[in-house]
Amino acid sequence: MRTLKVALLGCGVVGTEVARIMTTHAADLAARIGAPVELAGVAVRRANRPRPGIADELITTDATELVKRDDIDVVIEVIGGIEPARSLILTAFDHGASVVSANKALLAADGSALHAAAASAGADLYYEAAVAGAIPLLRPLRESLAGDKVNRVLGIVNGTTNFILDKMDSTGAGYSEALEEATALGYAEADPTADVEGFDAAAKAAILAGIAFHTRVTAADVFREGLTEVTAADIASAKAMNNIVKLLAICERSADGSSVTARVHPAMIPRTHPLASVRGAYNAVFVESEAAGQLMFYGPGAGGAPTASAVLGDLVAVCRNKLAGSTGPGESAYAQLTVSPMDGVVTRYHVSLDVADKAGVLAQVATVFAEHGVSIDTVRQQGREGDASLVVVTHRATDAALSATVSALRNLDNVRGVASIMRVEGE
Amino acid sequence: MRTLKVALLGCGVVGTEVARIMTTHAADLAARIGAPVELAGVAVRRANRPRPGIADELITTDATELVKRDDIDVVIEVIGGIEPARSLILTAFDHGASVVSANKALLAADGSALHAAAASAGADLYYEAAVAGAIPLLRPLRESLAGDKVNRVLGIVNGTTNFILDKMDSTGAGYSEALEEATALGYAEADPTADVEGFDAAAKAAILAGIAFHTRVTAADVFREGLTEVTAADIASAKAMNNIVKLLAICERSADGSSVTARVHPAMIPRTHPLASVRGAYNAVFVESEAAGQLMFYGPGAGGAPTASAVLGDLVAVCRNKLAGSTGPGESAYAQLTVSPMDGVVTRYHVSLDVADKAGVLAQVATVFAEHGVSIDTVRQQGREGDASLVVVTHRATDAALSATVSALRNLDNVRGVASIMRVEGE
Ligand SMILES: NC(=O)c1ccc[n+]([C@@H]2O[C@H](COP(=O)([O-])OP(=O)(O)OC[C@H]3O[C@@H](n4cnc5c(N)ncnc54)[C@H](OP(=O)(O)O)[C@@H]3O)[C@@H](O)[C@H]2O)c1
Ligand SMILES: NC(=O)c1ccc[n+]([C@@H]2O[C@H](COP(=O)([O-])OP(=O)(O)OC[C@H]3O[C@@H](n4cnc5c(N)ncnc54)[C@H](OP(=O)(O)O)[C@@H]3O)[C@@H](O)[C@H]2O)c1
Repeated sequence: MRTLKVALLGCGVVGTEVARIMTTHAADLAARIGAPVELAGVAVRRANRPRPGIADELITTDATELVKRDDIDVVIEVIGGIEPARSLILTAFDHGASVVSANKALLAADGSALHAAAASAGADLYYEAAVAGAIPLLRPLRESLAGDKVNRVLGIVNGTTNFILDKMDSTGAGYSEALEEATALGYAEADPTADVEGFDAAAKAAILAGIAFHTRVTAADVFREGLTEVTAADIASAKAMNNIVKLLAICERSADGSSVTARVHPAMIPRTHPLASVRGAYNAVFVESEAAGQLMFYGPGAGGAPTASAVLGDLVAVCRNKLAGSTGPGESAYAQLTVSPMDGVVTRYHVSLDVADKAGVLAQVATVFAEHGVSIDTVRQQGREGDASLVVVTHRATDAALSATVSALRNLDNVRGVASIMRVEGE
Repeated sequence: MRTLKVALLGCGVVGTEVARIMTTHAADLAARIGAPVELAGVAVRRANRPRPGIADELITTDATELVKRDDIDVVIEVIGGIEPARSLILTAFDHGASVVSANKALLAADGSALHAAAASAGADLYYEAAVAGAIPLLRPLRESLAGDKVNRVLGIVNGTTNFILDKMDSTGAGYSEALEEATALGYAEADPTADVEGFDAAAKAAILAGIAFHTRVTAADVFREGLTEVTAADIASAKAMNNIVKLLAICERSADGSSVTARVHPAMIPRTHPLASVRGAYNAVFVESEAAGQLMFYGPGAGGAPTASAVLGDLVAVCRNKLAGSTGPGESAYAQLTVSPMDGVVTRYHVSLDVADKAGVLAQVATVFAEHGVSIDTVRQQGREGDASLVVVTHRATDAALSATVSALRNLDNVRGVASIMRVEGE
């Protein structure tokens, strides 16, 4: 029986765990695959770091040379980022290897080209670990729901921002303070931009929307708003309404079925919603489909071992396919639905205004909402010396209508400022 | 491009929905499979019932003749029960067809023989719908977690009993009253035995344990206790401890890893546990594995359309394999772990005793627990005229130690009876 050879690109948080489990669980992997798998090389950037458990002669800093080796059956890419990951994966396909990757940024930017390269090479490209870490999500969407029609995917797919929002909610801390704690505890990276500005979640939303709707969706198609503008006042206001603020990724099919949208932004959801209780760095994703109804998937969204679990699940699948001389399902983009911009998205809004504390202001504000066809659900008024705040929660309206309303509100003399606008979801 | 032909065996709750979706979503299924699929025949028991949406000439009462047709690529078995389902599936394999089934009873009784027949025919046997309805669970366990080591599967896998327990909890109703309501609302069948005695959940536990532990487990290996003995007093006692009673299926690897157990029984879990909030006919399953940590899967556990969603996901996979000339992963039972009986299972217990209201009874009872090595966590004593009740909650102990303790308690003069024994889980 032949041994399958695996090249590991990257040996950081995830790669170290992949290598460890491949070694410690070699017998189980062999039994499940039907042939032994062997780590044939490990590419890193810095040659001279200690890599416990990995034989020195496996380490190389020349990743390109490693993926060009013709004895490599599967390449695991856990370097991250666009380049050199992209070129390395394409080279791997050129040399007949299948690829397992955890790289959401790359898949969301250029997934179709990579899938095309895999298909023309007769190779597999699997990336379960790229979305929601350990949680089996892409395989269920792609395979278990292959006979169903998914209408909506809604979830918490970034642990760093969930940790920050959780802190703000439980301690009343402001955004900067909560971010500092997340950084100190290792939940946020030194440069937290990708997480807090929503880039990471947007990449995941693009991948989810693409698979759920059988349509090409890239990160550029995803509306994205991070949580840097979320204030302690927003969190408190959410609390007052028995809501909680979460950074959500939402992929939806339009009511008429002809288009889809994908967006990432902070949103208020009821505290009774199952996503409200997702704590710390956990992830959870709801999938709504026509026949299955509402499904939820929950688990660790990141971390070395959880992410390695997803990578190794893909490794087993890809190796089985290799031995069978087949490939798994590739990209499915036959539906070619239009990916619509944010304007047409329909949801509810929480709008917080600083207004002059005068008679008639509420009537003025209400008129502006009405003129733009945005119907008001509730208004809460809080008076202070000379000025006041108005918190308006709307019924469902399009993003375009809400934006026009807000522009008009800014032009009212009695509106001193729009303190915050937040979407209200999950009801 | 050739058309794949499907024989549908059974056209009841599930089969009707399978046929409907195959017709209404034919174009999507064809695009996802890569070839059209056609319903080539539908076997039922009663020929002369209206079958809306299904052409009369497709209906037959001769299922055997249908599965013997050599143009059938895939057989979907949604008849249920052991025979004739078993023989029909074996005949299907003999004639080269792959099989998709929703039949937990059959798979739990005889899964290995069916898998062996599929393997020797070079055909697929898929049955995602057999456990937890629409929830993608078997595919994630078998494939997504193929590189991980599952240590525990714990869940609510029977909607009927969950509905009954939910009613008892929310209204204070007794078991019979809650069952009556479940029957009236269509949540329980006319003969509810399979559900309320835990047979249905035990079949699912056997299937889950087999896949999770790569070991053959049949329904006969599963310890099974239904909920017919659960009283309103048990529910109230659970409430008093801020717990809730659920019928759980639990599959566990022993601490030393050499054996596994599978069991189904009512248990108290904390109200703060995520399974506590699983309402009505929903199902939810926790999976704990070494690398991934704790995952949860949640969704509709039954119903025509949800179950059909799972069946059709399998249909797409099996059809793709057919076209590729390959087969998916078959039975994986290489680990051959011992399936241990209940004696060695370690958990906590809630023991409710009717005792004489005399001085020294508590000391006597406590001595019996101590003599059997079962350590007591809390005791609650309630006095009534002349007699009293004692509710003892233990620390973790083996089932054998608890059973021996209870036998000894029954022999105490001052113990008038053991009102109930319930396991305490999820802490
Ligand atoms: N961490 C998580 O929880 C998580 C979760 C889900 C998905 N992911 C994804 O998994 C991937 C890896 O993440 P990570 O957290 O493991 O990253 P990491 O800890 O930063 O590790 C990156 C690894 O890549 C190596 N590397 C960098 N540039 C290289 C080059 N040009 N050639 C060869 N090797 C190079 C680094 O080498 P040195 O060791 O020499 O620095 C390091 O071993 C990313 O795509 C990430 O988005 C991570
Ligand atoms: N219902 C659920 O929510 C659910 C959920 C998960 C799994 N399942 C599983 O799915 C399977 C089907 O369940 P179901 O609820 O759809 O059952 P059902 O409503 O009782 O339907 C059974 C079907 O099988 C047909 N049938 C019975 N004996 C037959 C025979 N000898 N030859 C040919 N056809 C025969 C019946 O014909 P007639 O129509 O003429 O009576 C009927 O169409 C079972 O294995 C069940 O455990 C069901």
